[in-house]
Amino acid sequence: MTLQTHLLAKAANQARGLAIDAVHTCSSGHLGLPLGCAEIGAVLYGHALVHNPERPRWLNRDRFVLSAGHGSMFLYSWLHLSGYAVSQDELTKFRALHSITPGHPEFRDTPGVEATTGPLGQGIGNAVGMAVAGQMAAARFNTADHAIFDYHVVCLAGDGCMQEGVAMEAIEFAGHQKLDNLILIYDSNDVTLDAMAAKTQSENTAARFKAIEWDVQTVDGHDMPAFLKAFNKAKKSKSGKPQLIIAKTLIARGIPEVAGTAKGHGEGGAKFADAARAGLGLPADQHFFVSDDVRAYFAGHKQRLVRACNKWSKTYRAWREANPEKAALLDSASQAPSAATLLQKIPVFPADAKLATRATGRDVLQPIAADLPLLIGGSADLYGSTLNYIAADKDFDTTNRAGRNIRFGIREHGMAAIANGIAYDGLFRPSIATFLVFADYSRPSMRLAALSKLPVVYIYTHDSVGVGEDGPTHQPVETISALRVIPNFDVIRPADPEETAGAFAAALERVDGPTLLALTRQALPTLNEIPVETRREGAQKGGYVAVRETAPLTHILLASGSELQYAVAAAKELGAGVRVVSMPSFERFDRQSVEYRESVLPRDCRRRVSIEAGVTDLWARYVGLDGKSVGIDRFGLSAPGPVVFKELGITTDAVVAAARSLS
Amino acid sequence: MTLQTHLLAKAANQARGLAIDAVHTCSSGHLGLPLGCAEIGAVLYGHALVHNPERPRWLNRDRFVLSAGHGSMFLYSWLHLSGYAVSQDELTKFRALHSITPGHPEFRDTPGVEATTGPLGQGIGNAVGMAVAGQMAAARFNTADHAIFDYHVVCLAGDGCMQEGVAMEAIEFAGHQKLDNLILIYDSNDVTLDAMAAKTQSENTAARFKAIEWDVQTVDGHDMPAFLKAFNKAKKSKSGKPQLIIAKTLIARGIPEVAGTAKGHGEGGAKFADAARAGLGLPADQHFFVSDDVRAYFAGHKQRLVRACNKWSKTYRAWREANPEKAALLDSASQAPSAATLLQKIPVFPADAKLATRATGRDVLQPIAADLPLLIGGSADLYGSTLNYIAADKDFDTTNRAGRNIRFGIREHGMAAIANGIAYDGLFRPSIATFLVFADYSRPSMRLAALSKLPVVYIYTHDSVGVGEDGPTHQPVETISALRVIPNFDVIRPADPEETAGAFAAALERVDGPTLLALTRQALPTLNEIPVETRREGAQKGGYVAVRETAPLTHILLASGSELQYAVAAAKELGAGVRVVSMPSFERFDRQSVEYRESVLPRDCRRRVSIEAGVTDLWARYVGLDGKSVGIDRFGLSAPGPVVFKELGITTDAVVAAARSLS
Repeated sequence: MTLQTHLLAKAANQARGLAIDAVHTCSSGHLGLPLGCAEIGAVLYGHALVHNPERPRWLNRDRFVLSAGHGSMFLYSWLHLSGYAVSQDELTKFRALHSITPGHPEFRDTPGVEATTGPLGQGIGNAVGMAVAGQMAAARFNTADHAIFDYHVVCLAGDGCMQEGVAMEAIEFAGHQKLDNLILIYDSNDVTLDAMAAKTQSENTAARFKAIEWDVQTVDGHDMPAFLKAFNKAKKSKSGKPQLIIAKTLIARGIPEVAGTAKGHGEGGAKFADAARAGLGLPADQHFFVSDDVRAYFAGHKQRLVRACNKWSKTYRAWREANPEKAALLDSASQAPSAATLLQKIPVFPADAKLATRATGRDVLQPIAADLPLLIGGSADLYGSTLNYIAADKDFDTTNRAGRNIRFGIREHGMAAIANGIAYDGLFRPSIATFLVFADYSRPSMRLAALSKLPVVYIYTHDSVGVGEDGPTHQPVETISALRVIPNFDVIRPADPEETAGAFAAALERVDGPTLLALTRQALPTLNEIPVETRREGAQKGGYVAVRETAPLTHILLASGSELQYAVAAAKELGAGVRVVSMPSFERFDRQSVEYRESVLPRDCRRRVSIEAGVTDLWARYVGLDGKSVGIDRFGLSAPGPVVFKELGITTDAVVAAARSLS
Repeated sequence: MTLQTHLLAKAANQARGLAIDAVHTCSSGHLGLPLGCAEIGAVLYGHALVHNPERPRWLNRDRFVLSAGHGSMFLYSWLHLSGYAVSQDELTKFRALHSITPGHPEFRDTPGVEATTGPLGQGIGNAVGMAVAGQMAAARFNTADHAIFDYHVVCLAGDGCMQEGVAMEAIEFAGHQKLDNLILIYDSNDVTLDAMAAKTQSENTAARFKAIEWDVQTVDGHDMPAFLKAFNKAKKSKSGKPQLIIAKTLIARGIPEVAGTAKGHGEGGAKFADAARAGLGLPADQHFFVSDDVRAYFAGHKQRLVRACNKWSKTYRAWREANPEKAALLDSASQAPSAATLLQKIPVFPADAKLATRATGRDVLQPIAADLPLLIGGSADLYGSTLNYIAADKDFDTTNRAGRNIRFGIREHGMAAIANGIAYDGLFRPSIATFLVFADYSRPSMRLAALSKLPVVYIYTHDSVGVGEDGPTHQPVETISALRVIPNFDVIRPADPEETAGAFAAALERVDGPTLLALTRQALPTLNEIPVETRREGAQKGGYVAVRETAPLTHILLASGSELQYAVAAAKELGAGVRVVSMPSFERFDRQSVEYRESVLPRDCRRRVSIEAGVTDLWARYVGLDGKSVGIDRFGLSAPGPVVFKELGITTDAVVAAARSLS
């Protein structure tokens, strides 16, 4: 069908009006993008995107990610006009408590919102992740007879996103991986929040992207036929490259007083609302106005979209019938794995095993990966160290889109943002790996995984000064504590092979948020004093009695991960009234019942000593004002791991001395 | 003088031998770069770099930054050969406890090491910061008669650095800012740790850099005359652009068994040490071998360098005599500011002031900036929101290198790495600004500032759910706690204008580590119940009795920043036995004497309640197992700030109820 330019131009102006009215109503928000990209929105939502407002999670929809999340009214307006369950009433409650139109788009809150965006650059990474998922889905599920996955991922980003390193990492990855199902629209308006963009950037964006293997087109973002032509060309490109469309736009177009300037970026233009409405041909007395012909057009367009979706559904049903195994696999994506079932697949380790938990992790991962074919893994150039390669499978690359191991390059932040994209998509279960100390590099994306309840699994190794010779830059003394404070983010730091098995099972069973597994570089003893089942279950509970006192309780020793061995040894030295509590996961322990927690840490016993090869601050939650913490409240040292442990006082003796010092 | 190719080729092979022997001795470390870049090292340290091994911190030295810090033996070998105080004995103690040759280069530990590097990409950012400092220094100190600053910054980076987003942000900034005193050498060996680089990158690097306004040359990194020619061309370029030299090298050259492969990257080649020594023409029986002619050459070269430095010193003395004011300003760089003196310059705020602490910050910054002319500021496109612009000065840009305000673009990580570079240089005092929630983006560089004891000041605003409508992506509920756990990193979260004044003074007085000032978006009452001096001093102490009980102590209420007002109000409601403790900085409070801390928080009083608009975990350090914490253990909400505070229970009533619930 031909582009209804006249009608869509009208719709664009009405979308501008919706944004103006919403921002005006709450006196906050960002007008620049919704106004500057109104024609782009009209072409995408009024014509070009393949989606279904009645089935926002339709498997083969085009994914649209607004990386420039501050322009959220763009999304809400077009979702509203398109017929998603985003009512006019919700538009009037923009940025109000418990509305589905929050300041920045939030995944799960609003139908049609594919990702939580706002922290700049993240959405581009998410879109790359969705494009990976799309390629994988096509490779693994499509058949010669039935192509059920052939969607595109469309991302709209501004200068802010384009300047962020996380975006650049993801963009380079996309070019390298030839993700030709990805279309990035760059809202190039030459303005940033503070000033004209020329104050902070001077590059030839087209040349830059061409140098990293993207196709590039540049168009006037207000010229709808030109934009559609570019978009269609990008969609149909056979070059095998991801597609950049540089759309030159006028920020805040529609409010002449601020258009084209930094003042147009935020809510500054809202005070000119009345004049702007008039200039846009909107009625003065009706806010949140949508004309009948625009409503009628979008109603008709929605019917076309629904019909297309229904047509796909026929193919889909035929595919299911023809491929029951693939269909069952696809269905499994929405089923949370059971930890108990996974643990049955993991053989018990030999009692004399002396393995690094990263090595245990490798061994545990293989049967899990066999049981969960949709689980995929990746590493930021550290497969050889983190050992998280799914050995039964191969690399995901341009020749093998079904590969389950993704080589992200030395791009930790991009990797985590891409993993979020895969998780937003929801078909594949992403796990990624690097050194724990580099969690800092990927932290902004990890926070968003927690906020958006994405079940990403982080297999981050080299979890303490046990790293040894690489020294303080590579020794995460504070990293675990810094991750523990993120809401809805689980950290599990297992102490031996069986706790590691329990930790992996727990991480994969959890589907309402991310889990980080903190694994050692160095070998650890297997703690046979503690029954296998206790260790496996204990890791899932987060905290448990590892060694029970055999006389009236006098002391509690708490430890996580590689330091549990010292607590166990210290208890033997200290006497029969000493209990050892293993605390691999604060978050999981804190979710247990009051009764359970009291049974592990009886309130009245205040002679408590914690040991962990890291900063001690957070252990005060369990040892209180009367206990002591053995830890490392400084940066580490370059020397062999055992030397560093001793030099920094992480020893059995230190635990014994601390316990004895408690009156 | 002409390049002594024959001698330097010999030196290069002996440097290879030093690296092989060091790595072989400790059975760890990275051979790839020291061997692959041996000829580059020979040209730089044996011929091209302008420096003085006898004065490692000579003001006008060329700065050399090894961004690929894992190749630390490159640096130690060439520093040793050049005559720095890096003895052969220290080379034999590579990666051993308390050596000055740790696994990755550490600033302050080793003469000639300009920056702590290892976390990839950071060194490129640091080098960009040093180049900024060089441009600033030239603009502010050179005169028509005397050019005392004309050094270059030379950075050596590998594929890992080049793939990192932080590097890309800094590189884009350098291109935009036309930092033509910067030479980036890209050790392009086509190999990363896990695999061939072609597995993760496919770009035309030269084209990419040209697109972002760099000059680019490509050379054989083993062809010393060719490399020198390129280096000299870069140094003398009049294009006004930063300079990239792509040096094609063979990783681990000298150990044929692993050269050119991923196995060459780390210590894998060390087992072939004997054969390698023979192949390199090194004696079989002498490890850490340096021939007499090589020693003699470098001794002679050192004398040439010292003479050049002495010649500069004459110019420098003449400059000092001719420009006593500039000389005094230069000297002030090594003097720590006095908080007391700074506070004298800051007028007391009106008792009825109702200001956001970011606005107070703006007002406090101006007299401080007037008093400290070497203080510079910058922002990641948020001057308008963080309000940290030094108003008496202008932008640092290509037309005004003396400007004290740096527009970093939307590049928080690059900004922080660049700030570290300025701080490593040591002449200017960097402060930078963004929203607090984006501390996560800059966190890896903040960690390195703490590790390297760099006095960077972070003016990070919008410090709680008080951000309001922007919602959870922009509301830092856990960010402050996550920063508090970094060793040697101070966080100060002031409660009102006078605490803000004290906080700025404390941050600037501190020169052995970084300080973050967490400031509010929203207006706060001035807490006149507390004397001005108490608030100013209290902020410096980190914790203090804000309101003293007037009856036997029953409860202690603790609070930081914007929540202190609620604690004060709750105390009034609860009665005369209630004390209010303001805790703007955990770290500073913890550094006070035991007696002082006991005087603020008497051990016996266990009825303690904390209030802070963020996660509560860390407050257990002060409230213990018997107290309670009012806080926000979840992500925030999009709604007006006051609505969010109320919805999430950050109220006076909540403090009162918590206190009353304590038996």
